[in-house]
Amino acid sequence: MTASEALPKVLDRIDRDLDASLDRLFTLLRIQSISTDPAYAPHCRTAAEYVATDLRGLGFETSVRPTEGHPVVIGKSGNGKANGNAPRVLFYGHYDVQPVDPLDLWQAPPFEPRVATLPDGRKVIVARGACDDKGQVMTFVEACRAWKAVTGSLPLAITMLIEGEEECGSKSLPPFVAAAKDELKAEIALVCDTGMWDPATPAITTSLRGLVYDEVKITAANRDLHSGLFGGAAQNPIRVLTKILGALHDDNGRITIPGFYDGVAELPADVKAQWAALDLTPATFLGPVGLSIPAGEKGRSVIEQISSRPTCDINGIVGGYTGEGSKTVIPSQASAKISFRLVSGQDPAKIRAAFRTFVRARLPADCKVDFIDHVGAPALALDWGMPQLASARRALTEEWGKDALLIGSGGSIPICADFKRLLGMDTLLIGFGLDDDRVHSPNEKYDLTSFHKGTRSWARVLAALAA
Amino acid sequence: MTASEALPKVLDRIDRDLDASLDRLFTLLRIQSISTDPAYAPHCRTAAEYVATDLRGLGFETSVRPTEGHPVVIGKSGNGKANGNAPRVLFYGHYDVQPVDPLDLWQAPPFEPRVATLPDGRKVIVARGACDDKGQVMTFVEACRAWKAVTGSLPLAITMLIEGEEECGSKSLPPFVAAAKDELKAEIALVCDTGMWDPATPAITTSLRGLVYDEVKITAANRDLHSGLFGGAAQNPIRVLTKILGALHDDNGRITIPGFYDGVAELPADVKAQWAALDLTPATFLGPVGLSIPAGEKGRSVIEQISSRPTCDINGIVGGYTGEGSKTVIPSQASAKISFRLVSGQDPAKIRAAFRTFVRARLPADCKVDFIDHVGAPALALDWGMPQLASARRALTEEWGKDALLIGSGGSIPICADFKRLLGMDTLLIGFGLDDDRVHSPNEKYDLTSFHKGTRSWARVLAALAA
Repeated sequence: MTASEALPKVLDRIDRDLDASLDRLFTLLRIQSISTDPAYAPHCRTAAEYVATDLRGLGFETSVRPTEGHPVVIGKSGNGKANGNAPRVLFYGHYDVQPVDPLDLWQAPPFEPRVATLPDGRKVIVARGACDDKGQVMTFVEACRAWKAVTGSLPLAITMLIEGEEECGSKSLPPFVAAAKDELKAEIALVCDTGMWDPATPAITTSLRGLVYDEVKITAANRDLHSGLFGGAAQNPIRVLTKILGALHDDNGRITIPGFYDGVAELPADVKAQWAALDLTPATFLGPVGLSIPAGEKGRSVIEQISSRPTCDINGIVGGYTGEGSKTVIPSQASAKISFRLVSGQDPAKIRAAFRTFVRARLPADCKVDFIDHVGAPALALDWGMPQLASARRALTEEWGKDALLIGSGGSIPICADFKRLLGMDTLLIGFGLDDDRVHSPNEKYDLTSFHKGTRSWARVLAALAA
Repeated sequence: MTASEALPKVLDRIDRDLDASLDRLFTLLRIQSISTDPAYAPHCRTAAEYVATDLRGLGFETSVRPTEGHPVVIGKSGNGKANGNAPRVLFYGHYDVQPVDPLDLWQAPPFEPRVATLPDGRKVIVARGACDDKGQVMTFVEACRAWKAVTGSLPLAITMLIEGEEECGSKSLPPFVAAAKDELKAEIALVCDTGMWDPATPAITTSLRGLVYDEVKITAANRDLHSGLFGGAAQNPIRVLTKILGALHDDNGRITIPGFYDGVAELPADVKAQWAALDLTPATFLGPVGLSIPAGEKGRSVIEQISSRPTCDINGIVGGYTGEGSKTVIPSQASAKISFRLVSGQDPAKIRAAFRTFVRARLPADCKVDFIDHVGAPALALDWGMPQLASARRALTEEWGKDALLIGSGGSIPICADFKRLLGMDTLLIGFGLDDDRVHSPNEKYDLTSFHKGTRSWARVLAALAA
């Protein structure tokens, strides 16, 4: 039985097994694997063990490997005996999730997954990680399970790499990949951590923005001061910080850091035309989240602002008294977390240095600044002529009955750049998330259709890549 | 025995009773009467009861009166029988204290008072409230105790008004004072909540800055967003907030809110000359807290910046992810607490309105702003020709062996404006705090000398006002 002969049976098996698939996903979703908070390290370990055990049941040779942070799960299938010439692919995903604050905005506890029905009738899986990335990872695992159940093996050789630090910067992963080069080498990497174009239209993400994440802490006086005694003469670090951060964007939404746009190219005319045809308006994109005015560079379309242009966001700020009521304090310190989404042509190290120069240039001489660097990763762009891209695109189009789009993503998956750099391997980014999934937010969800047809999509993509 | 005949005995009694006085102060300092945090309401009640019981023991007719917030303690002495013609004075103080965060910066628990010795040999009482205002209030109470012990009565009639909401805006006090007008009427008010000029030089504060305290909350999207998906197009409320707050001061340290300086007068030439002679340099004032460059209006001396010029401080700011590590969130909301110290000629209501107009003018059309108003109180200035001012000044000069200075304070004690408005009563502000007391900060202290000679000072002032 060839892969294409087996496919209808595999798809049928996925349909019949949906309830059990959901149960397995729910078990994973119940594990509180918040990677950024050290208090949840044991939960991350539990999630890794759970994934490893599940893969072992599918015939993968599996191990949970320690790192300086949370462990990495490696699973290796045989050489695709059913199809001797099939290539090997590396599937990458992550078992860790974002923190759940603010907890009071969740309609149900974030680690008690449930299926809910939206006002428009869509059934959705609600939980932290429902989409990012546990739900997405499980679409691939369930596709493997169906292949294994129907044909006794996988249609091609698969190496699984499931990490636990994606949500806190994947710090341990590049050295891990570098050290495990030979073991991880494959023809291509597959990643399920991106989105569809809309609930009916599948997509393959062919470009990703890079990311630089920096933390800045301003110190003024050597202790908190009373504003009645010192106010007027003593420098206030919140004033310094807001003055600096308030200067990062000009009135046209452009980032003012000198050199920030160096190397950023204009879109090719044909891509610009294709994107214009998609008709993504401020109303359709921002309306659902209660906004109406694009905040990016004036004169750029929404789709450019979110995918082909670099950005700067302040992700967190804190200083002074933040409890209820009032306190007339001039704090000693104030700090903020700032991130930049980068596009092709921007060097993460240069951007970080330019930002720090920008801050230091505005710092009063008697204040001090400290920086903590978090992630730094360049943007990524795929060659549109890749044969696997065409195969995968056809498979998705067959499943959804609608042309799969090739799109750029505003998000960043730094490991893809490492795969290219360390293993010389390109990455196919195929995912089934939707814009309203509330990824990283309270009440994160994943459409039941995304989970079900996502699993079917992977079954088809595996067959297509094996052909 | 006249008051002036009794005075030496009273002072001697204060010296001999110092250890017992300290014990009583420590008992009060152990009560965690943090007024701004509702969780400490029972502790505030305990502090009120403790003060009331102590005053009852000194012959005051005492009651703990409920308000919508924390209770007010009222104590009323007889009509000064030992001196039939003596006037009645109203003493005001507060039993509540500031929050203690950041707790990890305290060298010892804030509610376990102790006497420590500074490197320069000064002995200091260390605890939250050691100075502000429990230590200062107890200098007055201990002076009363000594008079009572030596002469069997007080040298003049005294009404005590000790509130519990000074550190969170004294919201209940003005209506309380308005309702209890007849009961509280006195010739003059005495307040012990201010400072000395330096550890050797006593001072009477004859002007106080007013205070407007506002909280501003910016809402952008209706939920937290992922900066990978929305970054670039979705407005970020921290960006909006920092842009607005960063524009509050120009490069010369002037506040940019239109109309902010309306009605602010230049200092009279003679006062300016007197202040210049005090030689308060940036090094002497800011050096001890680790700063060197005055942050106020360029071209103004430090003493002007902290006492005769209006100011703006951001007392707190919070938004987005503030835990450890990184999170690529665009939060839905960000908020800040902002306060203005006002001088004579500025109307608190107009300043608050001008600030809100300033914020709204800079708000993107698809964002929302909410304000919470905390304190609003005008500045206050005393008539330098007041006879009681001259008497009190002589008494302080005798105790400290150094001319008592008449100074302006940068702080605000809003109730003084209410005493003037509701009871037609002026206020003498006499206090023994020092610039290095770390009021509102970790490791708050009060010099043992301030406590001891402060008590002796009040014994003298009472005699002087009775004469």
